[in-house]
Amino acid sequence: MDNQTGDLVNSDSATQRVEAALARISATGRPEAWIALRGEDDLLAEAARIDAARAAGADLPLAGNVFAAKDNIDVAGLPTTAAAPSFAYRPERDATAVARLRAAGAICLGKTNLDQFATGLVGTRSPYGAVRSAADPALISGGSSSGSAVAVALGIADFALGTDTAGSGRVPAALNGLIGVKATLGLVPVDGVVPACASYDCLTVFAPDLALATTAIRTMTGPSPADPASRDWPADTPLAAPPAPRIAVPHPDALQALDPDFTPLWEAAVERCRAAGADTAVIDVQPLLDAALLLYEGALVAERFAAFGEHLDADDTDPTVAAIVRSAVKFSGADLAADQQRLRAVRRDARTLLAGFDALLLPTAPLHPSLADVHADPIGVNARMGTYTNFVNLLDMAAVALPAGTAGTKGFGVSLIVPAFHDQVAIDLTARLQHTSAPLFAPAGSDLVVFGAHLTKQPLNHQLTDLGARYAGDVRTAPAYRMYALDTDPPKPLVIRAGTGGASLPGERWQLSPAALGRFLTALPAPMTLGGVELDDGTWATGFVASPASGADITAAGGWRAHRQ
Amino acid sequence: MDNQTGDLVNSDSATQRVEAALARISATGRPEAWIALRGEDDLLAEAARIDAARAAGADLPLAGNVFAAKDNIDVAGLPTTAAAPSFAYRPERDATAVARLRAAGAICLGKTNLDQFATGLVGTRSPYGAVRSAADPALISGGSSSGSAVAVALGIADFALGTDTAGSGRVPAALNGLIGVKATLGLVPVDGVVPACASYDCLTVFAPDLALATTAIRTMTGPSPADPASRDWPADTPLAAPPAPRIAVPHPDALQALDPDFTPLWEAAVERCRAAGADTAVIDVQPLLDAALLLYEGALVAERFAAFGEHLDADDTDPTVAAIVRSAVKFSGADLAADQQRLRAVRRDARTLLAGFDALLLPTAPLHPSLADVHADPIGVNARMGTYTNFVNLLDMAAVALPAGTAGTKGFGVSLIVPAFHDQVAIDLTARLQHTSAPLFAPAGSDLVVFGAHLTKQPLNHQLTDLGARYAGDVRTAPAYRMYALDTDPPKPLVIRAGTGGASLPGERWQLSPAALGRFLTALPAPMTLGGVELDDGTWATGFVASPASGADITAAGGWRAHRQ
Repeated sequence: MDNQTGDLVNSDSATQRVEAALARISATGRPEAWIALRGEDDLLAEAARIDAARAAGADLPLAGNVFAAKDNIDVAGLPTTAAAPSFAYRPERDATAVARLRAAGAICLGKTNLDQFATGLVGTRSPYGAVRSAADPALISGGSSSGSAVAVALGIADFALGTDTAGSGRVPAALNGLIGVKATLGLVPVDGVVPACASYDCLTVFAPDLALATTAIRTMTGPSPADPASRDWPADTPLAAPPAPRIAVPHPDALQALDPDFTPLWEAAVERCRAAGADTAVIDVQPLLDAALLLYEGALVAERFAAFGEHLDADDTDPTVAAIVRSAVKFSGADLAADQQRLRAVRRDARTLLAGFDALLLPTAPLHPSLADVHADPIGVNARMGTYTNFVNLLDMAAVALPAGTAGTKGFGVSLIVPAFHDQVAIDLTARLQHTSAPLFAPAGSDLVVFGAHLTKQPLNHQLTDLGARYAGDVRTAPAYRMYALDTDPPKPLVIRAGTGGASLPGERWQLSPAALGRFLTALPAPMTLGGVELDDGTWATGFVASPASGADITAAGGWRAHRQ
Repeated sequence: MDNQTGDLVNSDSATQRVEAALARISATGRPEAWIALRGEDDLLAEAARIDAARAAGADLPLAGNVFAAKDNIDVAGLPTTAAAPSFAYRPERDATAVARLRAAGAICLGKTNLDQFATGLVGTRSPYGAVRSAADPALISGGSSSGSAVAVALGIADFALGTDTAGSGRVPAALNGLIGVKATLGLVPVDGVVPACASYDCLTVFAPDLALATTAIRTMTGPSPADPASRDWPADTPLAAPPAPRIAVPHPDALQALDPDFTPLWEAAVERCRAAGADTAVIDVQPLLDAALLLYEGALVAERFAAFGEHLDADDTDPTVAAIVRSAVKFSGADLAADQQRLRAVRRDARTLLAGFDALLLPTAPLHPSLADVHADPIGVNARMGTYTNFVNLLDMAAVALPAGTAGTKGFGVSLIVPAFHDQVAIDLTARLQHTSAPLFAPAGSDLVVFGAHLTKQPLNHQLTDLGARYAGDVRTAPAYRMYALDTDPPKPLVIRAGTGGASLPGERWQLSPAALGRFLTALPAPMTLGGVELDDGTWATGFVASPASGADITAAGGWRAHRQ
């Protein structure tokens, strides 16, 4: 295998990494980013256990990395507050996603501040203090995963966990120059997470680079009985973005919310897509943006009331949060049922609008306000922040938010938005925009080793990429094969196992979803055949290979059953 | 291809069939089964058009069949009443499902009576009269698809359309000795259907035999933009029941609702499963049955209010229906959100309970009451009728209801219940219980032609059936192949295309989902290979075939790219 699922073990020991993080917490002077920190002794004891396990040869792909968890996510041993002290409880166990990270060797430093009950995109709605941008304390951090983004942007944590219903895992990424990965709803179990709007809540990752963000989200992915809404990858999951992707971009009318300082950054991001080989086309995204009205002005807010409505009368409830969620009491069950039906229709319209595109590119947030701006208009500014993020979970889409420059100290980012389970396409496109190698998030897929016309840049390679196949490295066969030139159009080789006198032949390994491999086989014309190929490392993989006749000729028997009798 | 998707064209002309149906309507004297009949001239004109098209060679697989549509389904030219005259409207177009049947040559005779707004399982809740059992006018027909079931059972219609939220397409099948196919939610679009509880509504088919029922439901299946909730088959849909299925049956505690007259019929049905090769195991189904409380005593009733709550004050609203649906007003949006969350947990528990089973066998209805029984206790009797059907749509499962005998004139049936998209498993098991050939409902799948150890009853055949593969007939190759006996364990043949001197070899065609074919290929050991095989009818199919070396030996070039340069 190549290094696409490479080991991200930090070269520091876990102990060194914890010590550095604790020093950095002191040095950065942003206590409002945290709601609870684990004790130094506790952290160092866990680090020592990990270092010992690593030394003993344990497979700990995230060893040496430290992370922070938004304080609406359960971490055993720390209270979960959702930024409402009177709501706090002490969970007995880690959320499934947290447990998976810790099993991979990552160490949780503590719990971060958030817009209370994850209701807000500004980072100021918390009794633990307003969280400020990592780069400029006069500006907001964005939210609701405010402290998590800032803990990473300040270099304290290697990565951090957020949650995202309407943009809480993407907006703070944009404002603080980070990658934010919001996977398809249900891929990461959300048991042990305080619900915001349970049908549309995701657990997300912030990280400075795509490789670590992807490894962290992949580690947390997979259905769990603890989350009844968790979902597995389907059998036809695309495993790569195509070489020449089609990316939809919004009509300028939909960009009127954008801070003019961000306009050149936006235009540069679109140009980077084109420079990376994408074909861009302008579409009218207003129907997508309008879906947000269902989330905030319709009956879907009843899900927020169901989650924490009983807590709205507490003394420490943020008055803005309380006002938003109290609006739910006017909605009946029939209102909610009707809005859920409307949402299905909008999902259908979105599928139609985006058919034929591999991804949609949008600004992540249209502006980066100051704390004063938010204080002056707490509801209005917050609503503007979600212009380009609100609809994504509602419409069952996935997104990767990536940095796209700064205007002074204001942070700007863009998002690559894809249909459910097309997460790998967004990861790959992000990697192309960042000129980095693309890490694997989707399942590894089924091998197909190719030797001729399906090689990269050869005439039939598109038959693989059209099926969402992923290049997975160059390989060589065991020294046991011979190659023949077939007189086909286009020309193809036949690779066949030799009795004696074989050579080691070069090829490429591609990976396809099981359904894509089945479809590829069904479309394959004679005389090409697929079967097991022995590689030079002694392993076997499925690939293009022919088999010579061997054994006794039993044709005259008239079939296998007749021969066996 | 074999005849599993066989032509069901009636040997009568469409004109003869319409004339016979009209005569039978008069002869049977059950006007309460109908709400609207199309005019004789109109029907005969459509029949003449179909007979002419058939004579001209048109492909009309349902030509010569007449059907009835429950009057909550739109048929252009007839009003849709949902059994509430003041609710009636005149649709401009057919429901998508109806349009697909008509495009296949079936003729709609008219619209049938139902429990008003499809709310009821008895068939008595209608201002158009209580519908009575086909076999005994003192007994109820069952509902809510009352008239549709009776129109088929009386031999008027070849098949009929029902709808099913809590059992309305299955209970009347049981009481009237019919097959009732309730496919997975979303497979048949429900645009043009008056919603009952929109998230859990299905369109269903009643027919006297499985083949016609399956052809009708298959004709209606496939996503449509007109129904935003419609769904396509996934890429790993199982295409067959396994040879030795595992069938869950309920613990006797869950059968206390069963009319003692039905007990011997139930026991005989379980015994028929065993006689057909199934392994049965007793499970505690009470958690499944309890899910019905969410539908009737919880906030999900708000969906009914959303659908037709505005109509409850009309003079012609059935008082029982109105009382049920009015109960929704006490539920808030938050109540509905909370019950939807509970439902997700019950779905998860159901998956756990039924893991390892191919199907669950239950009685369809526990009793066959008289009209007097219902009159005496309209709510209580109705509730008992749904004991074994209520949960199926809530838990995203599919079912086939089949007749299982009579006790006097009382009709008894059982249901084979399977997870979403496992519909073909239920169809196949029904065929085995009825000793008929199993018609195809699922997509046809991808071909795999086998010649040796994977043939039926050969040692590796289980590798196909474990993947949900479907036997699709015996085939022979073109006379161009030779067979060799490999020295493998178990012994296998190698089939290879011969330059000259080839024979026509016998094999079997199997069909697999694309994902299953990909998985089969990935598991295939050398030297076996798969590729295109020419059959004796000149077509090509994917199968076990090897390719001999041919063309120039270019091994020494060191790979394809080096050779091409």
